[in-house]
Amino acid sequence: MSMRPVAVIGAGKTPFGAFADRDLRSLAVEAGEKCLRNANLAPGQIESFFLGNFAGPSFVGQNHLAPYVSAALGIQGVPSTRVEAACASSGSALFHAWAEVAAGVYDVVMVVGVEKMTSQPTPRVSEILAAAGDCGGEMRAGNTFASLFAMIARRHMHDFGTTREHMAAVAVKNHANGALNPDAHMRKVITMEQALAGKPVADPLTVYDCSLISDGAAAVILAPLERAAEFTGKPVRVLGISQASDQVALDQKEDITTFPAVRRAAEKAYRMAGVTPADIQFAELHDCFTIAEIIATEDLGFAKRGEGGPYAFAGCTARSGDRPVNTSGGLKSKGHPVGATGVAQICDLVLQIRGEAGERQIPRHALGLAENLGGSGATCVVTILGSI
Amino acid sequence: MSMRPVAVIGAGKTPFGAFADRDLRSLAVEAGEKCLRNANLAPGQIESFFLGNFAGPSFVGQNHLAPYVSAALGIQGVPSTRVEAACASSGSALFHAWAEVAAGVYDVVMVVGVEKMTSQPTPRVSEILAAAGDCGGEMRAGNTFASLFAMIARRHMHDFGTTREHMAAVAVKNHANGALNPDAHMRKVITMEQALAGKPVADPLTVYDCSLISDGAAAVILAPLERAAEFTGKPVRVLGISQASDQVALDQKEDITTFPAVRRAAEKAYRMAGVTPADIQFAELHDCFTIAEIIATEDLGFAKRGEGGPYAFAGCTARSGDRPVNTSGGLKSKGHPVGATGVAQICDLVLQIRGEAGERQIPRHALGLAENLGGSGATCVVTILGSI
Repeated sequence: MSMRPVAVIGAGKTPFGAFADRDLRSLAVEAGEKCLRNANLAPGQIESFFLGNFAGPSFVGQNHLAPYVSAALGIQGVPSTRVEAACASSGSALFHAWAEVAAGVYDVVMVVGVEKMTSQPTPRVSEILAAAGDCGGEMRAGNTFASLFAMIARRHMHDFGTTREHMAAVAVKNHANGALNPDAHMRKVITMEQALAGKPVADPLTVYDCSLISDGAAAVILAPLERAAEFTGKPVRVLGISQASDQVALDQKEDITTFPAVRRAAEKAYRMAGVTPADIQFAELHDCFTIAEIIATEDLGFAKRGEGGPYAFAGCTARSGDRPVNTSGGLKSKGHPVGATGVAQICDLVLQIRGEAGERQIPRHALGLAENLGGSGATCVVTILGSI
Repeated sequence: MSMRPVAVIGAGKTPFGAFADRDLRSLAVEAGEKCLRNANLAPGQIESFFLGNFAGPSFVGQNHLAPYVSAALGIQGVPSTRVEAACASSGSALFHAWAEVAAGVYDVVMVVGVEKMTSQPTPRVSEILAAAGDCGGEMRAGNTFASLFAMIARRHMHDFGTTREHMAAVAVKNHANGALNPDAHMRKVITMEQALAGKPVADPLTVYDCSLISDGAAAVILAPLERAAEFTGKPVRVLGISQASDQVALDQKEDITTFPAVRRAAEKAYRMAGVTPADIQFAELHDCFTIAEIIATEDLGFAKRGEGGPYAFAGCTARSGDRPVNTSGGLKSKGHPVGATGVAQICDLVLQIRGEAGERQIPRHALGLAENLGGSGATCVVTILGSI
């Protein structure tokens, strides 16, 4: 059957950071209210509400979070649904919201992503994040996500000659970008020397290879493209979107240097959008670890298999490069409030496409892609947005 | 736009109970495999997968549960999404699965609901369940769900003259039904005297007014009605379905003796199905507490406002009554593995509609309704199923 074209008609975000005085709901409500204003909408016009959240019950002790947030936004009586897919929670929520609008179930659908992480001490945060892996297997054996991605990095280095300098180049670039983003968690330019001398986390990864533990929220509203002009003068079109799944445990995968869920989701999203990787002008990629950004550029077809490291090192993904990646600063510098990340990537694409990205605005910004990864690749959502 | 008619083409459940030797995934896989066999389907034919689960991360320490379960079922590369909506988690998952099929996004969509609760001690279970309420307000003040529903019961008694005998009649009926259900957690007939002499939990509620803490899983597969005959000789039609939301905290509600989300979801489901409450021949209602079943019969229009107590006491909801309610035994006797309950209700409707309910089969079984409630009414999903 034919789907209706869908547009993003509003976007809103909180700054990302460590906010000791903010609770989960106030962050979600702030992003939601900014988004409603951005789309010139009243809460009563929302026909279906999705909340992307990974681990609110573990981080802040609150479950049943969708109506908890939507009622505070003044949205009642409509479906209000929490989606959890690890770090791809709000990307997945976005996918289901898109499906509702595209298929004509509803016209105006809101998606909020939120996570409040910093109220827990770091070892407890690692434990909560570990529950996105296989707790009966790899995590029981003592792994954390940093150690899983360290193994992935080590294998990528072994198979393809990827170096610590390649990974450090991703960190240097994303820190440089984040320094220009007023909403970024860490606005700090770093040098290659600093990145290489970072405190070890899980060899070969240092603190400069790992994303941040952050608080924050992000929101978007979707509507049929044909109605977008009712709400905004700057609609952004959803050209392609797809969600795919894979095994949760790393030891169940045939090859840990590539993520089949990313390749599958990308293939479907490209087909839906009628574009090829070469057409993508810029992207927000899921750099939970620097090696993840390198692998994503390969799985998405920006670089050849095994060449993601040199591709980053050569500056191709810098703001001045052929295909800028993570102009927001990425998870590394913008921050990574897990449940907010997928929708925050969409907000950042929207800013660039609308030409509202300020100091970090890039010249070619008509067609962007977001890749949101859950766990060590068991969930992936790829979204392609473009100017109308 | 016009929606495609949707059918349930397969259903499967585990027994409900306290299974010390079973983990969450093995329960979900058992229900999923039974369901696939029931629909004569291979895992590779599933185009989208939903998992309804309330609190796996808190009960068993595992998050990212949708791909964790779907990959074990042999389902990979497709969207695999966990939905959480407290005790309505799998009802909500079903609603979104229905929307995907009805709107033509996918043809064959599977929904599994699961919860593994008994590995935690009872006080910890109460604490985990409390996270479905407002943890910053009512729960911080010392409430549990039993005490919230005790207040609801007390108010209903005050406003309408409802008695402990009315509530006990619900318990006696549901225990009598559950005794005939080989998959029920507690197969134990009780007398009115026993029910009234139950150990107090939160006055006026006794153990006989409270649902069970259970392990279990349930699964259904949906497909377009026009394709149903490819998979089963006994399709069941989804005539109406709706999800609605409300405030999470009881103190935010104007009147605690009625649930607006239930009324709203019912109104939309009745309209979609083109039926009235009088047409419904039998129902599976969310008797997390006996008072909840009484209020549900009122909010759904089976009994007049305030008359749900006498309606139950008079035997109208017994298997031999005008409109049997919870022929499965309900949450009270069949058991209440939270995330499984919504889909389990659907499985029980399907059994009756197909005429496969064994000793508890009722004579009028062509049109049934399921009501799945989250928290103290912040989420509700109402589903109406009928024979083709």
